[in-house]
Amino acid sequence: MSSTYGKSLKLSIFGQSHGAGIGMVLDGIPAGLKVDEENLQEFLSRRAPGQGGHTTSRKEADKVEFLSGIVDGFTCGAPIAAVIHNSNTRSEDYSNLMDCPRPGHADYTAQVKYGGFQDAAGGGHFSGRLTAPLCIAGGLCLQWLSDSGIRIGAQILQIGSIKDEELNACHPELDRIDSAFPVVNSDAGEKMLDAIAQAKAHGDSLGGIIQCYATGIPAGLGEPMFGGVENRISEIVYGIPAVKGVQFGTGFAAALAAGSENNDSFYIENGKVKTLTNHCGGILGGITNGMPLVFSVAIKPTPSITCEQQSISLSTMQSASLIVNGRHDPCIVPRAVPVVEAAAAIAIYDLILSNTQTNKRK
Amino acid sequence: MSSTYGKSLKLSIFGQSHGAGIGMVLDGIPAGLKVDEENLQEFLSRRAPGQGGHTTSRKEADKVEFLSGIVDGFTCGAPIAAVIHNSNTRSEDYSNLMDCPRPGHADYTAQVKYGGFQDAAGGGHFSGRLTAPLCIAGGLCLQWLSDSGIRIGAQILQIGSIKDEELNACHPELDRIDSAFPVVNSDAGEKMLDAIAQAKAHGDSLGGIIQCYATGIPAGLGEPMFGGVENRISEIVYGIPAVKGVQFGTGFAAALAAGSENNDSFYIENGKVKTLTNHCGGILGGITNGMPLVFSVAIKPTPSITCEQQSISLSTMQSASLIVNGRHDPCIVPRAVPVVEAAAAIAIYDLILSNTQTNKRK
Amino acid sequence: MSSTYGKSLKLSIFGQSHGAGIGMVLDGIPAGLKVDEENLQEFLSRRAPGQGGHTTSRKEADKVEFLSGIVDGFTCGAPIAAVIHNSNTRSEDYSNLMDCPRPGHADYTAQVKYGGFQDAAGGGHFSGRLTAPLCIAGGLCLQWLSDSGIRIGAQILQIGSIKDEELNACHPELDRIDSAFPVVNSDAGEKMLDAIAQAKAHGDSLGGIIQCYATGIPAGLGEPMFGGVENRISEIVYGIPAVKGVQFGTGFAAALAAGSENNDSFYIENGKVKTLTNHCGGILGGITNGMPLVFSVAIKPTPSITCEQQSISLSTMQSASLIVNGRHDPCIVPRAVPVVEAAAAIAIYDLILSNTQTNKRK
Amino acid sequence: MSSTYGKSLKLSIFGQSHGAGIGMVLDGIPAGLKVDEENLQEFLSRRAPGQGGHTTSRKEADKVEFLSGIVDGFTCGAPIAAVIHNSNTRSEDYSNLMDCPRPGHADYTAQVKYGGFQDAAGGGHFSGRLTAPLCIAGGLCLQWLSDSGIRIGAQILQIGSIKDEELNACHPELDRIDSAFPVVNSDAGEKMLDAIAQAKAHGDSLGGIIQCYATGIPAGLGEPMFGGVENRISEIVYGIPAVKGVQFGTGFAAALAAGSENNDSFYIENGKVKTLTNHCGGILGGITNGMPLVFSVAIKPTPSITCEQQSISLSTMQSASLIVNGRHDPCIVPRAVPVVEAAAAIAIYDLILSNTQTNKRK
Repeated sequence: MSSTYGKSLKLSIFGQSHGAGIGMVLDGIPAGLKVDEENLQEFLSRRAPGQGGHTTSRKEADKVEFLSGIVDGFTCGAPIAAVIHNSNTRSEDYSNLMDCPRPGHADYTAQVKYGGFQDAAGGGHFSGRLTAPLCIAGGLCLQWLSDSGIRIGAQILQIGSIKDEELNACHPELDRIDSAFPVVNSDAGEKMLDAIAQAKAHGDSLGGIIQCYATGIPAGLGEPMFGGVENRISEIVYGIPAVKGVQFGTGFAAALAAGSENNDSFYIENGKVKTLTNHCGGILGGITNGMPLVFSVAIKPTPSITCEQQSISLSTMQSASLIVNGRHDPCIVPRAVPVVEAAAAIAIYDLILSNTQTNKRK
Repeated sequence: MSSTYGKSLKLSIFGQSHGAGIGMVLDGIPAGLKVDEENLQEFLSRRAPGQGGHTTSRKEADKVEFLSGIVDGFTCGAPIAAVIHNSNTRSEDYSNLMDCPRPGHADYTAQVKYGGFQDAAGGGHFSGRLTAPLCIAGGLCLQWLSDSGIRIGAQILQIGSIKDEELNACHPELDRIDSAFPVVNSDAGEKMLDAIAQAKAHGDSLGGIIQCYATGIPAGLGEPMFGGVENRISEIVYGIPAVKGVQFGTGFAAALAAGSENNDSFYIENGKVKTLTNHCGGILGGITNGMPLVFSVAIKPTPSITCEQQSISLSTMQSASLIVNGRHDPCIVPRAVPVVEAAAAIAIYDLILSNTQTNKRK
Repeated sequence: MSSTYGKSLKLSIFGQSHGAGIGMVLDGIPAGLKVDEENLQEFLSRRAPGQGGHTTSRKEADKVEFLSGIVDGFTCGAPIAAVIHNSNTRSEDYSNLMDCPRPGHADYTAQVKYGGFQDAAGGGHFSGRLTAPLCIAGGLCLQWLSDSGIRIGAQILQIGSIKDEELNACHPELDRIDSAFPVVNSDAGEKMLDAIAQAKAHGDSLGGIIQCYATGIPAGLGEPMFGGVENRISEIVYGIPAVKGVQFGTGFAAALAAGSENNDSFYIENGKVKTLTNHCGGILGGITNGMPLVFSVAIKPTPSITCEQQSISLSTMQSASLIVNGRHDPCIVPRAVPVVEAAAAIAIYDLILSNTQTNKRK
Repeated sequence: MSSTYGKSLKLSIFGQSHGAGIGMVLDGIPAGLKVDEENLQEFLSRRAPGQGGHTTSRKEADKVEFLSGIVDGFTCGAPIAAVIHNSNTRSEDYSNLMDCPRPGHADYTAQVKYGGFQDAAGGGHFSGRLTAPLCIAGGLCLQWLSDSGIRIGAQILQIGSIKDEELNACHPELDRIDSAFPVVNSDAGEKMLDAIAQAKAHGDSLGGIIQCYATGIPAGLGEPMFGGVENRISEIVYGIPAVKGVQFGTGFAAALAAGSENNDSFYIENGKVKTLTNHCGGILGGITNGMPLVFSVAIKPTPSITCEQQSISLSTMQSASLIVNGRHDPCIVPRAVPVVEAAAAIAIYDLILSNTQTNKRK
């Protein structure tokens, strides 16, 4: 039950980093939705590696093959299955990681949970590579949301100590986010790339914060308590490896404010209910209020660093030092941006599918 | 599907603030677990109001009546149902809130979602009062976890700008948390109470941060991707009203660190695998690593403030000013501490029940 | 997870036969649906005992108390919780049943599963009394379905070897079913009552078959494979104690027919698609075809018989003979009729709530 | 949510009859279970067509490709994904079936539900071909159950009016079932094959009844009410196309018996609790009692018959006559036998994974 998400839709993700293939099944999608495979492939290329100094040099085509659910460019109502075949597999020897677990990785916990039967190659099912099928599902949902006037975009808010300019939470101009390196302020972007390059030069890595916005969301999505928009989004976003925090609106900063500062006052604009500020991130009582949805995500620094680290040998139960080789991103934050958008799209599309119609009291 | 949580256990919470009763059904619990009703009642009293200047003056007995699932002090395997009858109900008129929604509250989103049929009295199903049944379920899980050597405790880490001393993430001494006002440093606690009193004097409110620790957790709980410990805990914690952020270990601060700082090195202590630091909060790849579980929660300032606020009239679609009367906590953070513990206990107990046994490779 | 049902709605049933109360929580119901409590109470009285020679003489008021989810006669969108307090409890000693299990009852399997902690009194959570909360949920769904022109009715098709006249599967005239004793042919009904009386006189019991019809069902409900109407209905109907078979349309008889006999030919009537026969029971490929839904249910004879039976002592692991005393229905089929209707109503209402809208190809 | 099954395991089935591929994802399986791919392929060949006069002449290799979840012959704890690529696709024109639906098929209901976007080719997702991935999942579960001493086997109990000899419900000797044509009595098998040949000669088809047995099942599996063994098995078995009835033990026949006949008396044999008869099919109160599990399944006659049938044109809304061409089984009962076994294996394996441990009262 580890890798299945959703209430009205059911997303099932499978694959290991160096297995035969990775992919997903997306069940519960209505028939008659248009699918633009070229657009999807472009979306996927945003998370693919090999696009700049800040990513690993491993080349992945990530060519999606649809096995079912789509006929002549439209969903047919049957589950959508898609596979990306792995071309670049199992060439290296990962067996030593099963004895000497890498700090910050799932090597040790996988060993405890799967008793030595886990697929250790390339991180197995824990690999960041599994975000590719998440992006297949999310890329499709983004297309369908777009047909309803809902747009989702995310910016790198921070890498290390360098901060980008934040979009306006009431009117996020998503087009201001650069398409190549997703920041608003290009100077900040340059500094971030420098910082990543420096970390790489030291065999070290960096983390960061991604902020995601969804506009065009109707009021009334979500449910109180455990079915709230925050619950549903955080449940899927924590499925992205390296995420260690999720907050909505001003989030942890709201904890510091007074109520008189933090409350968002209502007003009417062109006959529509709006709020003057958007500290709540578009969600009150778990339910969307019609303002943009805003949340941010903490990404820890890539645990794969090349400097020597302290670990242990599980066979001898003695301390051991570890040098991690291989191709690794010194900072996965840029590649994680479309993944966060994808996760948000899946959660929101599921919320829309689950939304029950209510009578209106006259 | 709004108010149901769990994989192996199924928790269903019901009630409105001013309805006949609030309660819960907890299904999927094994038979033969001891239930100490007195201990549960004591736990519930920690979230009850009326215990100091920092809470509302409304008195609630919160006396739990068990309807099923417990026979002679032990679970019998059937669903456990419990009710708290509301004694203090529907005395006031809340109908104006359906026209003039309070900023920061769910009044407007409830109106959109439920079309005027929602129970507006006292916040209805959105009320913080619904955390009482959460504490019934959580209080029971705390007892059963305690029988397995698992302890859960939480401290107020911050209220407004005042910070408490943080417990050691590797060895959290839960007994250092004061039982009356849950802080480690009593000076910080005094200052927090002062700040709350000041906010109250101004008709204003304060938010804060709660940090929760669980010790004695075995390694190997949780699943990769969507079934991870972070996913499961955040899904339930966001069910607590006013929560706007959840982070694990160093969380958002990890985003600022280098990988070489943030990775937790392994070592052996008395034949057990441990980590020198606990930046990951005891979770790697969604799975517990045997170190204490650490997460923190952002609580927004209570939206119920008595100073005049800007709102609208939904009937006239004109702006309107609003004065909120009634008994309200100027800061719900202290009362939310046991609720966070309860939520953590439910999530962890569910993870334990869901944990599959694996073979060990010889 | 034993006693929770539903996809879009979540029904949670709790209680033991001789516990403090039995009841249900029904979550996921839209706001603004009218609730007629008097009508519900009348529906519940159809399954209540003590209405004739064919039922136990135990009197149960089965007075429903709603704790939440209904305000001023309408659903408010919050979970609906209802309780029936047990007035007539734990007077007898059931401990010997934990040692000497009754044949045909769950005494032995409960002992294995719950290890001696089960509530043995009156059958505990296995008691037929738990169908009362099922009827609360089902009675509400029947009201809401009726508002959409959907009617559900069931007849006793057979008790022992005596058969009632079957309603026409294409045009079931539900009003022909007698309201007091639910058969179409009153002579058959008399003979059934005689057979029950005879069984009772011999300390024996009888089973039977109930056939249920739903009219006004729109075409297009249900999903292929595991989400089909047959899957959803059988999943809930097997929740009724004593059910040992469920079949749709001609069911097992279809197994004997040739395809040319069993296929239902399509025709057009008043611009609507219909079938000349209804052997499929209104379901093709798991999806409703707009014809009446027809299914039948096998009810085993009540295992509680007063003649001496062969059993064992679990403490001594020796054979033991057993005489069951107490008030028991010699035939529960008549009382099970509204329960089958209730189960069908819940399943159908859940299917309607889960039904996704699809685009139509132009 | 149509094609996803399971509580502790999650089975997701995808594909259309003439799409690129069909397959399944099986999530929630423990690590370290042995997988014998050759044995699985043999199991799959039992449902493959082209093995005799009684099946369609279409040849399918049904070669399974595993994409994930298995490393070096053992499950690795990650979801297991498997694909069968379709070699024999979309050669014919099925568009007329979208206008003129075949009686007894899902053509019309698919048209209503999917609005003309459904994959009509070869029945699309409704095709019996989708039972192949069900057999992949079930074939794996059969292997793992076999490792725990649980065996599952099924016989053709009846085709048309010809009956096989029933195995003893208390001691089903599964080896007596013929491996080529799964009956106990070879004379009955010959007559069945004759009847099928005759039906084929007339362009007609036949249905039948399959009876399935599981031995070695421990007592205590399953839950009361909706989580019972009957509920879980029927939910999955109704996912097999053409199933119109499921009954447990004596099923509908129990409805005709007196309680004194139908109750299964307990006795002790070699220190184990047994019953003298097994009318209940090994299930009391939804929970296994340690006796063999016995259930039977009604399969309707294949709706694909070649004689002229009465239908309609959905475009003109006029009556139309229909001749169905193509390769079709005159009786799918023999090929459905391993599918029923597979479905039972999945349900039972899920019940075992979901089984919670209880304390034993001393």
